[in-house]
Amino acid sequence: MDTWMRFKSNDGGIVFGRVEGGYLHEYESLERPVPTGAVLSSRALTPLAPCAPGKIVALWNNYHALAAKLDKPVPAHPLFLLKPAGSVIGSGEPIQRPPGYAGKIVYEGELGIVIGRRCRNASLEEAADAIFGYTPVNDVTAADLLNENPHFPQWCRAKGFDTFCCIGPAIVSGFDWRPARLVTMLDGVERQNYPLADMVFSPAEQVSMISQDLTLEPGDVIACGTSVGVGSIRDGAMVSITIDGIGTLSNTLSAAGRTDAAGQSGTAATAGVV
Amino acid sequence: MDTWMRFKSNDGGIVFGRVEGGYLHEYESLERPVPTGAVLSSRALTPLAPCAPGKIVALWNNYHALAAKLDKPVPAHPLFLLKPAGSVIGSGEPIQRPPGYAGKIVYEGELGIVIGRRCRNASLEEAADAIFGYTPVNDVTAADLLNENPHFPQWCRAKGFDTFCCIGPAIVSGFDWRPARLVTMLDGVERQNYPLADMVFSPAEQVSMISQDLTLEPGDVIACGTSVGVGSIRDGAMVSITIDGIGTLSNTLSAAGRTDAAGQSGTAATAGVV
Repeated sequence: MDTWMRFKSNDGGIVFGRVEGGYLHEYESLERPVPTGAVLSSRALTPLAPCAPGKIVALWNNYHALAAKLDKPVPAHPLFLLKPAGSVIGSGEPIQRPPGYAGKIVYEGELGIVIGRRCRNASLEEAADAIFGYTPVNDVTAADLLNENPHFPQWCRAKGFDTFCCIGPAIVSGFDWRPARLVTMLDGVERQNYPLADMVFSPAEQVSMISQDLTLEPGDVIACGTSVGVGSIRDGAMVSITIDGIGTLSNTLSAAGRTDAAGQSGTAATAGVV
Repeated sequence: MDTWMRFKSNDGGIVFGRVEGGYLHEYESLERPVPTGAVLSSRALTPLAPCAPGKIVALWNNYHALAAKLDKPVPAHPLFLLKPAGSVIGSGEPIQRPPGYAGKIVYEGELGIVIGRRCRNASLEEAADAIFGYTPVNDVTAADLLNENPHFPQWCRAKGFDTFCCIGPAIVSGFDWRPARLVTMLDGVERQNYPLADMVFSPAEQVSMISQDLTLEPGDVIACGTSVGVGSIRDGAMVSITIDGIGTLSNTLSAAGRTDAAGQSGTAATAGVV
């Protein structure tokens, strides 16, 4: 097992590599994991989301326990929606309540598969080989929007807002998901605690079957779906998702609107084109 | 009005620029439309999709005529799904029938908005300024998959296959969509002929409202939705979508499976990780 992280360095550049004992052993990239020879103290670096996916494939109804609770049959093929690249944030970054949306915002603790190699029509074996590693995901949803329109369920909109895909803090390669559990804490209170082995489609099955539909690229993330215990996040609350052997992803829901320079006010009139 | 195209040059590089009288006046990029000074004969170049979107936002139910035909109320906010970057092909490239899918494949002729500047929470005026130009889109769908699972409509899967987002041949900036019509021909027979002015949300309204949901990046495409006349494409048939003042996007549905080197056979066993 190796632990991989991405950081912003002091000069504003982005570095990626293997973390061990407080040091980053820099590698060329996730796609080309070749050591550059540079070793940096990770204390001097600002952690980022551990990869920069071009797309996030997010599964629905992929755990037997949740399917039973929802009284839905388990699917024959992974059921998914896409979250855009712009929805990604790392551990410690705030989830931003969308300006103008006062409704329920829901957490979903999930296992994330990080793709290491371009794959298309991959066999199960090839799919297993194409997995770079695993990372915790919080697949955030503006729940009131999902069925706001009775004629069209708005999965991409409700789950696609900027900051609605929390991933990190690290990717662990060589991780055995079979015996692991995922625990979600909301302000310190346990809300989810489920075995990853309850998955309907295993990670390699997901990669193989989804690669029949669309080409997966290095850095892309498949969010494996959640299980029971999903709930809403109050403004200011912190969601922490732990997968033993990987780490803890923590994010607070901020109601203060955009915190980046271009959109501080969070209103359409003043935030503008950035 | 200027016409913009993207090409592969003989040395394998990608060039982008303004096309006039058989020549490409090269520009740095769509995001930074600054002339490089180079002028190339476009005859010696291979046309590509005119931009490389990071994501495609595809609207549903955005024309009054189609809403009336489907007997659905027009929405209060754009209803959309996301198509992945890997679904994009240019004019003249084949639409590939997914290996293992023998069902109906449907064309949808649409106006495409090409984003020129990053925008988030944009006002209507800012949104109008963020539009680089317009291009025809064929928003292809594996129609039988859409409602294959009764519990989860598979919009992203049915519309997200590689080659299922045809765009081009060119982007036209300064184009006035208001008086224009879109005509779709299937093997030379007219199937769609509708006025763009029948749109529910205008292009600037779409950009403004969608930018409240997610950040739009330069090169991203919004497919404005289709109107009446959608139908299925037989294997080998050619779909041509013309918007007067922009040009004609033509693509043939190939049943032969993947034609790229890595996936020639189109079977999971042999195509593999590429």
